[in-house]
Amino acid sequence: MILGSLLLISTSKIHGTGYLDHAEGEIRDFVSGVKSLLFVPYALADRDGYADMARERFARMNLSCSSIHRSANARKAVGMAEAIFIGGGNTFRLLKTLYDEGLVEPIRERVKAGMRYMGASAGSNVAGPTIRTTNDMPIVQPPSFDALGLFPYQINPHYIDPDPNSTHMGETREERLLQYLEENETPVIGLREGSMLRMENGTITLKGSRTARIFQRGKAPWELEAGSKVEL
Amino acid sequence: MILGSLLLISTSKIHGTGYLDHAEGEIRDFVSGVKSLLFVPYALADRDGYADMARERFARMNLSCSSIHRSANARKAVGMAEAIFIGGGNTFRLLKTLYDEGLVEPIRERVKAGMRYMGASAGSNVAGPTIRTTNDMPIVQPPSFDALGLFPYQINPHYIDPDPNSTHMGETREERLLQYLEENETPVIGLREGSMLRMENGTITLKGSRTARIFQRGKAPWELEAGSKVEL
Repeated sequence: MILGSLLLISTSKIHGTGYLDHAEGEIRDFVSGVKSLLFVPYALADRDGYADMARERFARMNLSCSSIHRSANARKAVGMAEAIFIGGGNTFRLLKTLYDEGLVEPIRERVKAGMRYMGASAGSNVAGPTIRTTNDMPIVQPPSFDALGLFPYQINPHYIDPDPNSTHMGETREERLLQYLEENETPVIGLREGSMLRMENGTITLKGSRTARIFQRGKAPWELEAGSKVEL
Repeated sequence: MILGSLLLISTSKIHGTGYLDHAEGEIRDFVSGVKSLLFVPYALADRDGYADMARERFARMNLSCSSIHRSANARKAVGMAEAIFIGGGNTFRLLKTLYDEGLVEPIRERVKAGMRYMGASAGSNVAGPTIRTTNDMPIVQPPSFDALGLFPYQINPHYIDPDPNSTHMGETREERLLQYLEENETPVIGLREGSMLRMENGTITLKGSRTARIFQRGKAPWELEAGSKVEL
């Protein structure tokens, strides 16, 4: 069985709503019984502003939320956390900082031992085997593209369908993910904005109201229904 | 003086036209007197198909075009080439292959010694100092993000303006490049589709009919007029 309890959110916001509003119901269900969260703001440059926003948002769910960048010892903070939430931003910056701070192994171990893990966008990306399906710009170079490996499939957050009216010649998201499959075997879940993945007791479920687009070698991309178990 | 003669094209095609059609005039001018091109197809998986397409296209400009992947010795092919053209595709795959084949240093040396260099999209990206401003998905991991360093500024090909009607919450291109500037100092040229950069005798000129968007630390992004010299 794959160990760990995860809630992986495609985007921190959907259009026209506030920070994490669309995911509040799923978050409340996921952290029921939890009193405090350790927040990881490394994906954005303004860590203080990001931490304050998260603290205010989770206070409205009766959760206390301390940011890892304010702790004297980041590894110790992971060791003592009740649950962890890794926020979105730039995936390369996030993963590089996790390596620089020596946090990849401690987070992996704690989650496998039962600490609940939530991620949004870049924070969902780094839960997978690698960051090879991020949409982000490689603004810094992490020592490896290997990520936490808590979730068995690659995630492409903010998955977006091709715009039939576009005259832009850059690759569509689907074209990019098909290029990924030319080089890699692990399947990819194209997670549209508003969708989430919940992993519990080795079972993965697609949450939210939208289908997800699945990319597997040797198959045409296909749509997984909302509410389905994910077995690829 | 910065050494090298370069023609860096934002995109291989603009909407509604064929391969390199929009750039044909600039290409003809750039390679006037040149009889043969060495083509680098590494950014795409289908090297044979890509090489055949390039050979056919350049034949229509009276240029013979051999592909490096069909040469017995790639380094020797670079050493003997009259001019080089690096095609577009995935920038990570392209740069990783240049490293794997031991071509980064030989190409750099030959261009600094006068071999003419053309690139499109990913092939333009790798001419700059690093690939930190590529739009591509990191489907493979090159040993370094450092690129050929022939051109002094970062290039963002396929630069696209924010769509005011979009409801998508992923970062706009401008937001991504501002994140780049949070971590890096080298200025970026956001090169719209249809635009090109020509470097000759240490002077860089923006070619094509569109402005380019310039990103520099401590300044708001600004527009550089078509036909201008680029001095950042």
